[in-house]
Amino acid sequence: MQFIKGHGTANDFVILPDPAGALPLTPALVAALCDRRRGIGADGVLRVVRAANHPDAVRHAERAEWFMDYWNADGTYAEMCGNGVRVFARYLDSMGVTGDADGLAVATRAGVVRAVVGPDAIAVDMGRPRIYDTSTATVGGLTVPGVAVDCGNPHLVCALPGALDLGGLDLTRSPGFDPAVFPAGVNVEFVAPAEPVNGADLHVAMRVYERGSAETLSCGSGACAVATVALRDAGRDAGVVAVDVLGGRLTITLDGDSCWLAGPAVLVAHGEVDPGTL
Amino acid sequence: MQFIKGHGTANDFVILPDPAGALPLTPALVAALCDRRRGIGADGVLRVVRAANHPDAVRHAERAEWFMDYWNADGTYAEMCGNGVRVFARYLDSMGVTGDADGLAVATRAGVVRAVVGPDAIAVDMGRPRIYDTSTATVGGLTVPGVAVDCGNPHLVCALPGALDLGGLDLTRSPGFDPAVFPAGVNVEFVAPAEPVNGADLHVAMRVYERGSAETLSCGSGACAVATVALRDAGRDAGVVAVDVLGGRLTITLDGDSCWLAGPAVLVAHGEVDPGTL
Repeated sequence: MQFIKGHGTANDFVILPDPAGALPLTPALVAALCDRRRGIGADGVLRVVRAANHPDAVRHAERAEWFMDYWNADGTYAEMCGNGVRVFARYLDSMGVTGDADGLAVATRAGVVRAVVGPDAIAVDMGRPRIYDTSTATVGGLTVPGVAVDCGNPHLVCALPGALDLGGLDLTRSPGFDPAVFPAGVNVEFVAPAEPVNGADLHVAMRVYERGSAETLSCGSGACAVATVALRDAGRDAGVVAVDVLGGRLTITLDGDSCWLAGPAVLVAHGEVDPGTL
Repeated sequence: MQFIKGHGTANDFVILPDPAGALPLTPALVAALCDRRRGIGADGVLRVVRAANHPDAVRHAERAEWFMDYWNADGTYAEMCGNGVRVFARYLDSMGVTGDADGLAVATRAGVVRAVVGPDAIAVDMGRPRIYDTSTATVGGLTVPGVAVDCGNPHLVCALPGALDLGGLDLTRSPGFDPAVFPAGVNVEFVAPAEPVNGADLHVAMRVYERGSAETLSCGSGACAVATVALRDAGRDAGVVAVDVLGGRLTITLDGDSCWLAGPAVLVAHGEVDPGTL
């Protein structure tokens, strides 16, 4: 089974080229591929399938040739993964797939998204996140108020109380959340202000505990959720927010219905894996 | 740069074939390759060099064709790695390298070792560990007596007090040890008895905190140290000890000057990595 390993701000993926949608991918195989010691190791799997060849994407086939079949490391599906789309677009670009004036269209379970591929950064329009509720997260015995944001997947954005330090937060376990608000679970972001940087209206730092995974070094949709809340709290409807994640810096640009998530996306290795050995 | 990824009881390695010893391997490149999100990810790198082509191994070239140039994930050298030799032998075997009646000779910085390659298990003679002192480790506020064992590297083997459960032990931080006894640090093993298994005289379970690293899922020399102490405590000089590590089961056979470390060793993937992207 052919694979490519890549990452965006240290959010890493095993890419499986499968134009025909013929790979017998199962939750167990995904989990085994993502096992960091017994397998290849990754935060998730990006299967590259022609949209026309996958039942979840065939309706998008006229608008997007390729479908990002995204799986979490634990073998569950996710609708969308912002860093995943950026790495996915890097892979398509490396294979000579070109977009049009509007960029490169990628079908996902959350709809068709557009990516603009640069030599270093890749930007993807995630669609404007929607703030829809308030709730709380509990971490280290503390209950922290937060804002519920829908980015296609659910997020809970919590401003870190002043007494706490982002680096000192214990995210070895999932923060507690209200299952009545988030019946399908939630990605929880903790946010602290950061020093101003050139080219951005706002600058914040965040850590994220991803649903169905663990704390990760980066979460693209989480950064979009965080930027949306930061701009709203600053009384703005549009603007550029630099969001520092543990794995690097993402730049979020909100304008009208768009939410551009930009940052590096790198392919580091490619090869073959023998599923029989996993 | 060509690579193979493999593991022995979840102790995992990036193998770099380099017969000529020409790869410009640096501590920074090793650390980047072993980075689990930005690189390939592994506990260490095994460079495969003809012994005649490496200054650290040329003196062994008549006895062993291949040198295991072992590097830790942090870019430092280590003399020896028991699970590493087993995975290294699996790779040589996959390339059609055959040994003689005594097995497959592998040059290491700790001398030439012999491996016997089976379809599932690979055994390597690590040389008899030497018990040389007693000391104590502190964990979770408790001081636990232990036995100092030299396997080429230093180990402190601690029988877990009856009141404690191996699974409940907090090894997120290094146990405390006496720097007067272990001036260069020590690998600390905690051991509990386990149910008898077929084919072994003794059966124990262990967890290990590796010097300068963290808790790992397996440590080959640690299992040898543990088996040596278990046999001595049973009043035996030779025998077979099954040692359960978090990553699987290792079988240690002590006899005369030999200490055979046996267990699975698997190659899961191979491919190419672009060092320029790391």
